[in-house]
Amino acid sequence: MIQQEKLSKEQIQLEFESLQDSICQSLEEADGLGRFKEDQWRRDGGGGGKTRIIEGKVIEKGGVNFSAVHGQLPQKIGTALKLPLESKFYATGVSIVLHPHNPHVPIIHMNVRYFEIESDQLEKGTKWWFGGGIDLTPHYIVEEDASYFHNRLKSICDQHDSEYYQRFKTWADDYFFLSHRNETRGIGGIFFDRLSSDDEKSNIFDFVKNVGNAFAPIYTELMRKNKAKPFSEKEKDWQLHRRGRYVEFNLVWDKGTKFGLDTNGRTESILMSLPSTAKWSYNYEVEQNSPEEKTLKLLKKDIDWVN
Amino acid sequence: MIQQEKLSKEQIQLEFESLQDSICQSLEEADGLGRFKEDQWRRDGGGGGKTRIIEGKVIEKGGVNFSAVHGQLPQKIGTALKLPLESKFYATGVSIVLHPHNPHVPIIHMNVRYFEIESDQLEKGTKWWFGGGIDLTPHYIVEEDASYFHNRLKSICDQHDSEYYQRFKTWADDYFFLSHRNETRGIGGIFFDRLSSDDEKSNIFDFVKNVGNAFAPIYTELMRKNKAKPFSEKEKDWQLHRRGRYVEFNLVWDKGTKFGLDTNGRTESILMSLPSTAKWSYNYEVEQNSPEEKTLKLLKKDIDWVN
Repeated sequence: MIQQEKLSKEQIQLEFESLQDSICQSLEEADGLGRFKEDQWRRDGGGGGKTRIIEGKVIEKGGVNFSAVHGQLPQKIGTALKLPLESKFYATGVSIVLHPHNPHVPIIHMNVRYFEIESDQLEKGTKWWFGGGIDLTPHYIVEEDASYFHNRLKSICDQHDSEYYQRFKTWADDYFFLSHRNETRGIGGIFFDRLSSDDEKSNIFDFVKNVGNAFAPIYTELMRKNKAKPFSEKEKDWQLHRRGRYVEFNLVWDKGTKFGLDTNGRTESILMSLPSTAKWSYNYEVEQNSPEEKTLKLLKKDIDWVN
Repeated sequence: MIQQEKLSKEQIQLEFESLQDSICQSLEEADGLGRFKEDQWRRDGGGGGKTRIIEGKVIEKGGVNFSAVHGQLPQKIGTALKLPLESKFYATGVSIVLHPHNPHVPIIHMNVRYFEIESDQLEKGTKWWFGGGIDLTPHYIVEEDASYFHNRLKSICDQHDSEYYQRFKTWADDYFFLSHRNETRGIGGIFFDRLSSDDEKSNIFDFVKNVGNAFAPIYTELMRKNKAKPFSEKEKDWQLHRRGRYVEFNLVWDKGTKFGLDTNGRTESILMSLPSTAKWSYNYEVEQNSPEEKTLKLLKKDIDWVN
């Protein structure tokens, strides 16, 4: 128990920094050409981060961000999270979005984060939690790949808690949802927030690390499998329209993006999630029985991808 | 006085419908090739609209929308506008966004709208107001065109009230602002809301109509003047990045878009404002002393464009 209580924010931050390093290395190897460029930045008010951007052969535009920020809790966050307004906060995490060239390679997003609040008004003086998730946005949904993805996530969840996968899968379906389109962003994945239990801090962190460590092997396999598939101009055009939906989700609905922009976060690091190019056509229509129509029909909540 | 009080929502709606017709006709003439396609739609709960989209020679993608909707006031709007929650509402208006092919032709937006609330909890049983505005987003800011635009708006305002221009120009600077970029969307224009005075309903409507009627002559002149200017690939690339900012404004900050998406509006009509293609590059940099840098320096509030 004493050992578990000792898990400090400094340790968590260090682990997240090495997670960023190892993911960048795996992605560079899988891409074969692109190399990450790093911008280190400082935050007015405390902390900073390392934003790493890749433009490669498989990945057209991708960001792997690490940050560790602290200071006075911004009022908007305090209100939204129902926390004492005079709190001090500490937040560290790794955030990833990758947009590939080839429409047969899916877009992916991953985030792991740790949040800590200090306030005289809290019972123990502090409060902490972990959050995170991985979700996949194929431009063309292929059942085999979707099952592969969800099976891998389920097996990570099952190592920790037999209820995690179903709970976090449903959470992802609800979170990564464009209500103005009545579409999920993609095939979902897992999403969790406010994971906290004073007796279980190390165990929860182990789970979060396992999610982080699973990212690179899962995605590089999808890169490897799909990167050489030929594609038509029509498929490229479809991809650019699906990226338009990705932009809509991130700018209209994504809470992380909203908080970041609202609270004077580093805009270029936050908006690294946007694709290099996106398209919008009024009333874009797909052909009956086409792969595009099949994909649209699968952008629904509550599909069971595990087998 | 009696005549003024008689101005009904039906009359206002009819005038807005003919405004849509006359603007579409002027734009088709100025474009020379494109023809508007119309979608008529009905709203669950009451009313509907006519969405008209053009893809032409000068205008790459443009929408000129008319709508007249009514019913139970959506709760989100009631709360935001501090209106009795059991109200009935009626809203009619014309909304325009035009994205040109040529980066030397500016993006333009225009909106005129009328809003009416009925509720037992209101003193007179009803409450009404007009709102609207025009703003210009040049990909390259040219002082001469910016002055032309603001002078035209000022002369319309001055016909009605000598204080209108300064008040509505400042309002536009504040409204069309991307705080996460510390940039105005473009060179602004005029923006007004909640214009209401029971003795002056016809006068206010005259002003709103004059704003609406000024749109086509002002913009077709900017089309005519700039449509044949040659442009480079670099200039086209810059245009696509400026469109990215336009997407950011509309999806992150624009209140009309947010309300529309929040309250189950017709998504394709609302998002006709998005360009056909937009780009994002991490840390996009402009050359020193370039026209792009000059434009960025002019994306500020409180520039006096009138001469």
